[in-house]
Amino acid sequence: MTLKRARRSEVPPFRALSILSEVNQRIAAGQSIMRLEAGQPSVGAPEAALDYARERITRDPRQGYTEALGMGPLRVRIAEFYQTRYGLSIDPARIAVTVGSSGGFLLGFLSAFDAGDRVAMAAPGYPAYRNYLKALGLQAVEIETGPQTDYQPTPELLDRAVAQNGKIDGLILCSPSNPAGTMISPEGLKALCAWCDANGVRLVSDEVYHGLTYEGPAETVLRFTQDAIVFNSFSKYFAMTGWRLGWLVLPEDLCAPVKALAENLFVSPPTLAQHVAWKIFDHTDVLDGYVATYRKNRDILRTGLEEAGFSGLSRAQGAFYFYADIGDRTDDSAAFCARLLDEAGVSVTPGLDFDTRRGGQTIRLCYAGPTTDIEEAVRRLKAWGG
Amino acid sequence: MTLKRARRSEVPPFRALSILSEVNQRIAAGQSIMRLEAGQPSVGAPEAALDYARERITRDPRQGYTEALGMGPLRVRIAEFYQTRYGLSIDPARIAVTVGSSGGFLLGFLSAFDAGDRVAMAAPGYPAYRNYLKALGLQAVEIETGPQTDYQPTPELLDRAVAQNGKIDGLILCSPSNPAGTMISPEGLKALCAWCDANGVRLVSDEVYHGLTYEGPAETVLRFTQDAIVFNSFSKYFAMTGWRLGWLVLPEDLCAPVKALAENLFVSPPTLAQHVAWKIFDHTDVLDGYVATYRKNRDILRTGLEEAGFSGLSRAQGAFYFYADIGDRTDDSAAFCARLLDEAGVSVTPGLDFDTRRGGQTIRLCYAGPTTDIEEAVRRLKAWGG
Repeated sequence: MTLKRARRSEVPPFRALSILSEVNQRIAAGQSIMRLEAGQPSVGAPEAALDYARERITRDPRQGYTEALGMGPLRVRIAEFYQTRYGLSIDPARIAVTVGSSGGFLLGFLSAFDAGDRVAMAAPGYPAYRNYLKALGLQAVEIETGPQTDYQPTPELLDRAVAQNGKIDGLILCSPSNPAGTMISPEGLKALCAWCDANGVRLVSDEVYHGLTYEGPAETVLRFTQDAIVFNSFSKYFAMTGWRLGWLVLPEDLCAPVKALAENLFVSPPTLAQHVAWKIFDHTDVLDGYVATYRKNRDILRTGLEEAGFSGLSRAQGAFYFYADIGDRTDDSAAFCARLLDEAGVSVTPGLDFDTRRGGQTIRLCYAGPTTDIEEAVRRLKAWGG
Repeated sequence: MTLKRARRSEVPPFRALSILSEVNQRIAAGQSIMRLEAGQPSVGAPEAALDYARERITRDPRQGYTEALGMGPLRVRIAEFYQTRYGLSIDPARIAVTVGSSGGFLLGFLSAFDAGDRVAMAAPGYPAYRNYLKALGLQAVEIETGPQTDYQPTPELLDRAVAQNGKIDGLILCSPSNPAGTMISPEGLKALCAWCDANGVRLVSDEVYHGLTYEGPAETVLRFTQDAIVFNSFSKYFAMTGWRLGWLVLPEDLCAPVKALAENLFVSPPTLAQHVAWKIFDHTDVLDGYVATYRKNRDILRTGLEEAGFSGLSRAQGAFYFYADIGDRTDDSAAFCARLLDEAGVSVTPGLDFDTRRGGQTIRLCYAGPTTDIEEAVRRLKAWGG
C-alpha cells in the first residue's frame, strides 16, 4: 500500500546546490565554467591548521565523541575570540559547538520556538531559514525588503508586518546578509534589538558572515541584548566549509535545553573538525589575507558588472555576494541563469532561492572564487550581452 | 522581559553522555575508571583509512561542500556493500549519506511523519528516538518489552498497543538493539514488515549495529519491504565515531523530499569523513578483527557479571551491550550507578535513559572497550559486592 509522506517535508530544493551539482557534471565533462553560484570559499583552512589535522589523526586514531556542546578548550577559544574581535566577555558555558551553522539552526529554532510560532525574516533571505521553519512546523513571516533599506528589516517594516499580520515570536537577522552582502549599522542593530525587547520577540542573529567585511567590521547583537541566539560558522571567514562546524552563543535560559537537545539530536559535533577549529584561531592572519582577496574580487566584479550593464547591484559591504536586480532584462531568472551558464559559461544563482515572490527578477553572484576566475567571468559577462 | 522557551525542547539530557562527561573529569583528575558507559568503540578507523584521510587533506586542502546526499562514489560504495553483505541490489540513488545516523533520524522522521503522528518504539530503547520524536512534534508510542521477546516488539505486542491506544503511523525497529544487544530473527523481521504493510505503518529500521553480531549476521528489512527507511552509521562497526557520518536507504517515494530537506537542513555531510568512509570498505578485514575482540569481551563480561551475581542479563547477540535487570538490588539505578562509579571505579549507564518507567531497575553495560579494561571491570565488580 502507498504510505504517506510528510507535508512538512515538501520544501523546495536549494537551487544553488542543484546548480552546483550540475556545474560539477559540466566541469567533469570538460566544460570551462566560471563558478559564481555557490557560497563557499575557494580556499581551505590555513596550512598550519591542516598540518594539525594530520597530526591529530596520528595522535588519536580513535576520534571518539566529544561532549555534546563541543570540547571545552574550543568553547574557551571561541569565547576568547569575542573578547579579541568585539571586546565582549562571553562565558564559554554559553557557547555550543554545532554541526555547521545548519546544526545550530536546528538547535536554536527547536529550543526557542514551538510549532505554530511565527518567525520573521527578510526576503530576500537565506532559503534554508524558511524551509527549516516549515519543516519544524513554524511559520515564516517574510518581510519584503529592497535596496531602500539595504535589503534589511527595520523597526518600521516590522511594525507594519505586525500591524498587518499579527504578533511575531521571533526575528532572524543576517548581517552581512546572504544574498545581498549588505549590513545593518550598529545603530540599526541596536534599534532592532530594542524593538525585539519591547515586543517580546526572540532575536536570532545569523552572524556567519562576520569577518568578511570590507568597509568596517560587523557588530554583534550580543552587545545590545542578552536574550538573542547567535549563529556562527567555521565555513565562511574560517574557510572550513566541508568540515561542517559552527557555533551558537546562547542566552542563559536556553543553555540547558540546547545541551539536552544536542545530546539527543547530534551526540556530538565532528571531532577532528573541532581540533582544526581550535588551531585556526592562531592563524587569523591567513584568514584576513583571504578577506583581502575577496575585497579585490568584489571590486573587480562590481566594476565589471556595471560595465556589462548590470545596474541594480546591492551595496555589498560584506559576505561574498552581490544581489543584482535584472528586472530590466527578464522576469524569469531561472531561464536567465540557464542561458548564462550555457552561452557564457558563467554560473550564478537565480533569486528565486532567496525571494519566492520577486526572485524571478534577481540573481546572486558569489565572488569567493579565485581572482582570475572573477576576471574571466567579467570578460565573459561583457562579451555575452545577455 | 522574559522570553518563552519552547515546550518541545524540554527533553531530558542523555544520561550516558552526562556520565561520559563526568568520567572524563574524573580521569583528568587522576582516577582510574573502567568505562562501560558510552556506546562507542575504543578503537579507530583502520590505519589505511586514516592514512587516506591525511593524504586527502594534502590533495584537497579546500575541503568544500559535497552534494547534499553525499559524494556519488561513496553512495555507490555503500550500495555495493549491500550486495556483498546481504546479496541485495540497491540503487545508489536510494542512499543518502548523513551527518551521523543522528542526521539521518532528522531527515527520515521529517520526511515520513507530520506533527501529531504516532510512532511506536520499544521500551527499553534508544532515548534519542523518543526525544527526537518529541522535539519534532511526534508522539512516541512506547511498546514495553522484556526478556520474553528479547526486548523486541512483536506483531502481537503491536496489535495490543493499537487496540489499547489507537492507530500508529510509524514503527522504529533496532536489531541488534541498543540497549539490550538482542536481535530479531529473519522470520520475526519478515512478520513485522508484513504487519507494517498490512497496517499502513511506515517502518523505520535502525541498523546501526549491523556487522556487530556474534551468533550469525543480522538481516536487513530491505529484504522484506520497499517502503522502509533504513538508518545506518559509520560509528559502530566501521569505528568512525567522531567523524559523524551515517547513511539512509530510502524508499523511492522519499528520495526527492529527503534530498530537498538535506540541502536545506545540512547543506552537505562532512567531506573528509566521506573520503575516509569510501576508503574503509577496502579494510573490512580490520573491522571484522574488532568484532572478534568485542565477542571476546562479551564472553568475559557475561561470565564475570554472572559470577558477580548479576543474573538478569539480556541475551546479547549483537551490538556491544548487555542490559541487566538489577531489580533484586535496587529501584534506583541512577544511585546504583553513582555508587558503582564512586566505590568501584566502574562506569555504566542507568536504565532510565532507555526505559523511563522501569529503568530504575536496570543498567546498560558496554563492552566496546579494551579487553584488559573489561577484565579489570569484572575484577572490580566481583570485589565490590554492590
